[in-house]
Amino acid sequence: MKLKDIGEFGFIDRIGEGCLVRRRDVVQAIGDDAAAFRTPDGEVTLLTADMLVERVHFLLNKTTGFQLGYKALAVNLSDIAAMGGAAREAFVSIAVPEDCPLEFLDDLYEGMRALAEKYDVNILGGDTTGSRADLVINISVTGSIPEDQILLRSGARPGDSIFVTGCLGDSKAGLHLILNDIEADSPELQALITAHNLPEPHLREGRFLARADGVHAAIDVSDGLSSDLGHILKRSGVGARIYEERLPITDPLKHFCERFGFNSAEYAVSGGEDYVLLGTVSSDRSKETARQFLSRFKRPLFLIGEITESKGMVMARLNGQEETIRPSSWEHF
Amino acid sequence: MKLKDIGEFGFIDRIGEGCLVRRRDVVQAIGDDAAAFRTPDGEVTLLTADMLVERVHFLLNKTTGFQLGYKALAVNLSDIAAMGGAAREAFVSIAVPEDCPLEFLDDLYEGMRALAEKYDVNILGGDTTGSRADLVINISVTGSIPEDQILLRSGARPGDSIFVTGCLGDSKAGLHLILNDIEADSPELQALITAHNLPEPHLREGRFLARADGVHAAIDVSDGLSSDLGHILKRSGVGARIYEERLPITDPLKHFCERFGFNSAEYAVSGGEDYVLLGTVSSDRSKETARQFLSRFKRPLFLIGEITESKGMVMARLNGQEETIRPSSWEHF
Repeated sequence: MKLKDIGEFGFIDRIGEGCLVRRRDVVQAIGDDAAAFRTPDGEVTLLTADMLVERVHFLLNKTTGFQLGYKALAVNLSDIAAMGGAAREAFVSIAVPEDCPLEFLDDLYEGMRALAEKYDVNILGGDTTGSRADLVINISVTGSIPEDQILLRSGARPGDSIFVTGCLGDSKAGLHLILNDIEADSPELQALITAHNLPEPHLREGRFLARADGVHAAIDVSDGLSSDLGHILKRSGVGARIYEERLPITDPLKHFCERFGFNSAEYAVSGGEDYVLLGTVSSDRSKETARQFLSRFKRPLFLIGEITESKGMVMARLNGQEETIRPSSWEHF
Repeated sequence: MKLKDIGEFGFIDRIGEGCLVRRRDVVQAIGDDAAAFRTPDGEVTLLTADMLVERVHFLLNKTTGFQLGYKALAVNLSDIAAMGGAAREAFVSIAVPEDCPLEFLDDLYEGMRALAEKYDVNILGGDTTGSRADLVINISVTGSIPEDQILLRSGARPGDSIFVTGCLGDSKAGLHLILNDIEADSPELQALITAHNLPEPHLREGRFLARADGVHAAIDVSDGLSSDLGHILKRSGVGARIYEERLPITDPLKHFCERFGFNSAEYAVSGGEDYVLLGTVSSDRSKETARQFLSRFKRPLFLIGEITESKGMVMARLNGQEETIRPSSWEHF
């Protein structure tokens, strides 16, 4: 079945089913000119938007609808997480080529709903339209946070410890496997592909960090550690030193790099789409924050370096030498 | 100059300039993972999203960047107007083909900013990315409104008068001129083209109606009177009778129809993209509401028919006969 068989309004009826997971505070969901929802008093509303374009961000023969829907929402939730906020309402705009099977679209919304339910997010509205060439998805997500808790890129201070909330580089390795049609012949390789296709937004970690004392800045790792740390440094007017030995790298990535002849530290530094949080915490609070993080999430908060007064980004290599690293920007143009 | 010459971040810096017209309540604008803004206590936040796709909604050789940007924002502001809300913050996602001239994009943002300033709306964030084929723009706009004032499609009641806040069909006539490369050789034809390219969102009219006693339902005329009235009827579980003699038709449209052999009533009923508001008001309040509207806006509120208990939509023709009319849905697929 094709989209044109059920029409725009048929499609809206179809996707509207099951999109509300939290009816409290919803004044109007899909079906009017705009959605309406109350925001808690005294909280700041956050809003983020990400657009995914076929042949730029994804290839239809390399993803399932479920994975695409899941990931399209995950990258938005990750932006809310990076501000320390709680995600609340999602709005999905989609431009659909005429020959796109309806089953793919159902699967896509299923992927979004699966993730939305997990984080108590409503899919509350959006737009659907045709496209002459590529499938395009734009998702906007609102979040809320008390104003004094917001984590900005601009808050890093010299002396701060630099942390990440998870391992780096797995997604880039998964992408390599997918793009080169390498069969995932082990649970380890499958884990790398999952890291790329179904990233977990660190919303709970973001709320934890926003509430913790001494956390000064955060961003999510979407373009790669060096690129995203570069944003914090530029905004905060500071520099950074990273220690190669402290870069958190999973066993699957180590084994992948050994097998295919890559450098795992380079994957960790330049790999994009990790969707872990990267931030800074004052040095006198870093150990206690890491201890509480471990106790709460049963995973470590990795302290990988420190903020410096002198501008620029350097990495202390395993051999003791210091090396300048540059943001490996994930350029879309 | 092409977008790739300045890069994604260069483009973001470029468009960020001048996007804030109201700094009050802005916690974070373009430049972080999400925008952050306060909403007034006790108000409901509205959010609408519209996606415009090249070769589906517009042709690059038939529009200027300014017109495209202006209209992309206008259709969103019109959605907020249709709920009775005040527009507050806009978020622009854009997918740009590699060969799109930077001047076109600058012009596009100039069009958005011109309209945003007029209605005190911030352009507060969004996403920019590449596209392999078509230019795609998605705009999300938030609005605010006290909850007891929201105008929904579902509020129409039998006996209500049906109103529109402006004339109908001009935009469809303008589109005919544009698509058929007919030279606008008079101010009247130019007015029709302007109605299509630079529609005025009826935000102030929407706020007026939301505050007025007895106004029960509203929608904006984007797909055409018959289609959009159909939405109100379906949502409210009622029917409608429209009077042909009361359809508001401009002199330019009358002269256009005479010259090119069209029926102006048909243009008024089936023409889309008028972006006036269509709604219902209780019959005992309709005359007073129209009087106050005229006094406030120096233009009439047109009372074009009434809501009926019996389902369906009929038009009383000039010859006294009643004729069933069907929603001429503007199908995108």
